[in-house]
Amino acid sequence: MGLKANEVGEIGIIRRIAQILGSKYLGDDCAVLDNGVDYLVVTTDMLHRTTDFPREMSGEDIGWMSVAVSLSDVAAMGARPTGVVAAMGIPGETEMSFIEGIARGMRDCARAYGTEVVGGDTDQHAELTIVTTALGRVDKDKVKLRSGAKVGDLLCVTGYLGTPAAAYKVLIEGREAPEEDKKVLIDGFFRPKPRIEEGVRLSKYPEVTAMMDVSDGLGKSIFELSSSSHVGFLVDADRLPVREEAKKLAKDRGELLDMAICFGGEFELLFTMSPTGLDKVKDVEYTVIGRVVPEGLTLDDSGARRPITCRGYEHLRKKRDTMH
Amino acid sequence: MGLKANEVGEIGIIRRIAQILGSKYLGDDCAVLDNGVDYLVVTTDMLHRTTDFPREMSGEDIGWMSVAVSLSDVAAMGARPTGVVAAMGIPGETEMSFIEGIARGMRDCARAYGTEVVGGDTDQHAELTIVTTALGRVDKDKVKLRSGAKVGDLLCVTGYLGTPAAAYKVLIEGREAPEEDKKVLIDGFFRPKPRIEEGVRLSKYPEVTAMMDVSDGLGKSIFELSSSSHVGFLVDADRLPVREEAKKLAKDRGELLDMAICFGGEFELLFTMSPTGLDKVKDVEYTVIGRVVPEGLTLDDSGARRPITCRGYEHLRKKRDTMH
Repeated sequence: MGLKANEVGEIGIIRRIAQILGSKYLGDDCAVLDNGVDYLVVTTDMLHRTTDFPREMSGEDIGWMSVAVSLSDVAAMGARPTGVVAAMGIPGETEMSFIEGIARGMRDCARAYGTEVVGGDTDQHAELTIVTTALGRVDKDKVKLRSGAKVGDLLCVTGYLGTPAAAYKVLIEGREAPEEDKKVLIDGFFRPKPRIEEGVRLSKYPEVTAMMDVSDGLGKSIFELSSSSHVGFLVDADRLPVREEAKKLAKDRGELLDMAICFGGEFELLFTMSPTGLDKVKDVEYTVIGRVVPEGLTLDDSGARRPITCRGYEHLRKKRDTMH
Repeated sequence: MGLKANEVGEIGIIRRIAQILGSKYLGDDCAVLDNGVDYLVVTTDMLHRTTDFPREMSGEDIGWMSVAVSLSDVAAMGARPTGVVAAMGIPGETEMSFIEGIARGMRDCARAYGTEVVGGDTDQHAELTIVTTALGRVDKDKVKLRSGAKVGDLLCVTGYLGTPAAAYKVLIEGREAPEEDKKVLIDGFFRPKPRIEEGVRLSKYPEVTAMMDVSDGLGKSIFELSSSSHVGFLVDADRLPVREEAKKLAKDRGELLDMAICFGGEFELLFTMSPTGLDKVKDVEYTVIGRVVPEGLTLDDSGARRPITCRGYEHLRKKRDTMH
């Protein structure tokens, strides 16, 4: 008998599929198709009840997140979304009110970012399964890929890191926190905000050399950037932007850094930028968290340097065990 | 407690979702997006191991069918495919050689119709689940919708009807047939051929007034055309094109008509055409099977008329019971 999927793991499976399907299959947050005057970008994401939606999520939360995860990939290319389609596998015993909630959440998220759910498919399935596919368009000279990072560039991120990790500790581990803090953290986890406007603005600057989203965690994201751009990263622990509510929740500095680097689930944009961009990029809020170096993925924690080893969770090996 | 999904049924669920998501959600085989110089069409289809892939299918067959089902929707719009993305939920105990077979089948089907699988997502799932999304482009003045059928038009179909139904009887019911016949029928079922070239050719003719594919069966398809175009259909039973191998397999005329009208699973194009098209459309093989009438879905069986009641299987209510 040959190898099985769970012995190979998600990354191994994707590599093997990419070998068969060709080079376009791998690489960026979206596939890029020539559309004549501009590029069409397209991304597809599969989410499941047991692995992606904590049971505390409402139908509306699930619908919102399902669309947000794909829109975030469109944002990562510097593109503006032009449409979303959604396939839903629904268990027969699901309440109709819950399904309607999912549809409302999808609609609200799409509209909040200037687009629409234009089509879909439904089918019976033992486990709630949602696959969203988002389309976007971007000028050919503005598209941002993962492959453009250059040694000497700054590493930057929008918004905050570690919010879903903190929310997870509240929800799943029962970690204590003030009610207001819990609300902020859980809302950040359940209602992620894809950075469409930020992505479109950043796309205008040639100083922005590479971009992706951090939905699989900062650690895995810089690993992907380093693979695509053939560079390394030096991340400054002191600069990682973490919400006060999440900072207060962390037991110690080790856990705080783990939350910010290894968990994922937030849809911020991670990008590299020539230092000359510092004086130019004024219309997007971001934090410089490190810089591009020739090799290695290294965390500088107040002078102590150590390798960044977390690569985000791999669904097929571990993800099933992490959520419930 | 409110209504549950299996009490409402697939059509009811889709209607409710469409009410929430807006009018674009329903209607044609693909959603149609303005792409400047032309239209972009997009379709998404969810398939599952237990309901859509008989266990006799190889990985290659499954991959081929998964891409073919979406390309058929692109063909139905008169569009040429420009890319496919595929999300796969894979059980952990799946053999890697089987997964590789799926990828090869996807690649081969996409290439056979001039396109590529350009991206995807993989995830762990209890049941093999594949969601393909296909994109295509079509000139604005050539797109074919379901809504253009006019009283007096001819009803036409490419290729044959009833092949998957006959293959199903061989595979699942153990119906006896010569080995050569079995091979033809099963190949027709497992390796459907989306009618891309035929769709593109038909799109050039203004005489072709409405088009869709018959993947859910002829009965359901004319129901959909009648709803969109506000017309009825009179179908001539003697004209239904059925392969000799399938005809020989049918126990009696009733079963033969049921196979041709009610089963589905084949990816032929169903279209309506002004009678003036008969002398013009010479570059596509098709059969005239009836005509557009003011109302009603009626089968004329050698002069005996009866209503066509089958609407194809509804996944959430019945499909699970029909395949295994």
